[in-house]
Amino acid sequence: MGFELKILGANSAKPAYNRNQTSQLLTVQNELFLIDCGEGTQLQLGHYKTKISRIRHIFISHLHGDHFFGLIGLISTMHLQRRTTDLNLYGPPGLGEIITMQLKVSGTVLSYPLHFNEINPQKPSCVFENDKITIQTIPLIHRIPCVGFLFREKPKPHRIIKEKIQKEFSLLDMVALKNGEDIKGENGDIIYKNGDFTLPPKKSRSYAYCSDTRYHEGIVDQIKGVDLLYHEATFLSDREQRATETFHATAQQAALIAKKAEVGKLLIGHYSSRYKDITPFQTEAQQVFENTILAIEGETIYIED
Amino acid sequence: MGFELKILGANSAKPAYNRNQTSQLLTVQNELFLIDCGEGTQLQLGHYKTKISRIRHIFISHLHGDHFFGLIGLISTMHLQRRTTDLNLYGPPGLGEIITMQLKVSGTVLSYPLHFNEINPQKPSCVFENDKITIQTIPLIHRIPCVGFLFREKPKPHRIIKEKIQKEFSLLDMVALKNGEDIKGENGDIIYKNGDFTLPPKKSRSYAYCSDTRYHEGIVDQIKGVDLLYHEATFLSDREQRATETFHATAQQAALIAKKAEVGKLLIGHYSSRYKDITPFQTEAQQVFENTILAIEGETIYIED
Repeated sequence: MGFELKILGANSAKPAYNRNQTSQLLTVQNELFLIDCGEGTQLQLGHYKTKISRIRHIFISHLHGDHFFGLIGLISTMHLQRRTTDLNLYGPPGLGEIITMQLKVSGTVLSYPLHFNEINPQKPSCVFENDKITIQTIPLIHRIPCVGFLFREKPKPHRIIKEKIQKEFSLLDMVALKNGEDIKGENGDIIYKNGDFTLPPKKSRSYAYCSDTRYHEGIVDQIKGVDLLYHEATFLSDREQRATETFHATAQQAALIAKKAEVGKLLIGHYSSRYKDITPFQTEAQQVFENTILAIEGETIYIED
Repeated sequence: MGFELKILGANSAKPAYNRNQTSQLLTVQNELFLIDCGEGTQLQLGHYKTKISRIRHIFISHLHGDHFFGLIGLISTMHLQRRTTDLNLYGPPGLGEIITMQLKVSGTVLSYPLHFNEINPQKPSCVFENDKITIQTIPLIHRIPCVGFLFREKPKPHRIIKEKIQKEFSLLDMVALKNGEDIKGENGDIIYKNGDFTLPPKKSRSYAYCSDTRYHEGIVDQIKGVDLLYHEATFLSDREQRATETFHATAQQAALIAKKAEVGKLLIGHYSSRYKDITPFQTEAQQVFENTILAIEGETIYIED
């Protein structure tokens, strides 16, 4: 079952050079998670043939417009499509009020239940959990309250080798095998050793989304060893001072975080509109952390298990 | 000096078939007026190479999202561009509050003065006037308070024929000629007849923007004889009942209004997302009013004087 990230927009602040504002679509085992929602996100989703009716959870990192101005439009379009499924929003205080006010003035009573889940931006907390995944907030350091999101697949079951299943296995035996346990007799003796009937569990994959933030080593422990880290890189390092002043990071700083956190792969984006050519971002980051790629609209990053 | 209308978006409700939501840019003698501002309008303005710093007046017909969800993004981008020129918004009650709240949560103190001019949607009133143009509201009938906008050039001066200017003409004589008056001697006798020295004034052009509205003959007197009428046509006439229920109009109804108001040209748009092919809108309207054109993104309509 897939774990893939689609880039819908990767520019910062204002759109430029046909680069849209920030939005990403993460699909984990057929469940869609929309992360941030800059203006025009619904157009991007349409462009990439995503059925927006499948999106049930939307995560907003902070209330700068380039991360959420597209949300009200998306919510409205879901209503016009006569959606009936619940939609869950996760975002900082204030988001619910903004959405509610805009629905009110347009006389809109949504066709579906909309749930606001207010995030405390001060400390890491689990904001979502189902049988496959947990989602934790990552407090970041920005001009206004801002969090990242850490998506982690839960541990997976041992994989039973079908050809080796014995007729006498009960359902409880099968559960035990999936849990990695041996099958024991009434007296507690091992009858069947787990390793003879199963393969080890597939890897539990993880993705950390960190935008927007000043260089902040405080996040390293929390994101340690994730398969994929998205870290904002608004500037190149010749503008490190500007980055610090505006509570943003450089490509080099993003790579330093990736290196310290020993992540599998680094994805950078949130490019300032001052840069037409973004290839220097990759060059700069790769000098510190080789496995760095650029967030490019329309591209999909797959994480294998 | 030009009088031209650029179509930035002409779809209703939700974007579809690469058709954006409603927005138009009217340029009158080098002054830019933005009319409605659906999501993605700033992207469209960028796409068509409009310098958004030149926009000083934005008119919002009503608070349905497809007409204003792009406004906050545009306002923010102007700020990020370090604009210092005043920006004037004209819209129904509630608009100012929505914009103000979003600026507040993002911690944005705009780099330029933003003025909210609240419109009374109940009766026609002049909301803007300078030395070249007046702009009046046109009360429409929609599900929520909604107005159209009537742009009228003021009467223009008589055009003095340079070759015929006499040495003895004073500045006051020139003013008299431009005003269409004869030049008289101290005893009140006509010395120079205006018609010998001037050409008649150029035509004062006019544009009426009417979206969204149910079929409403009450607007006919106000828009009588305008050069160009934009009238919404959300549906074809086989869905007239649906149009009435949703306070929208059909292409045929738009054409009926154009005919009764004896306008020069009819422009229709605000197509429902249910229609992929919009050519039947023109066919239907032309059966009632021949000089009908379709609002198509990126196209410009020029009105000659």
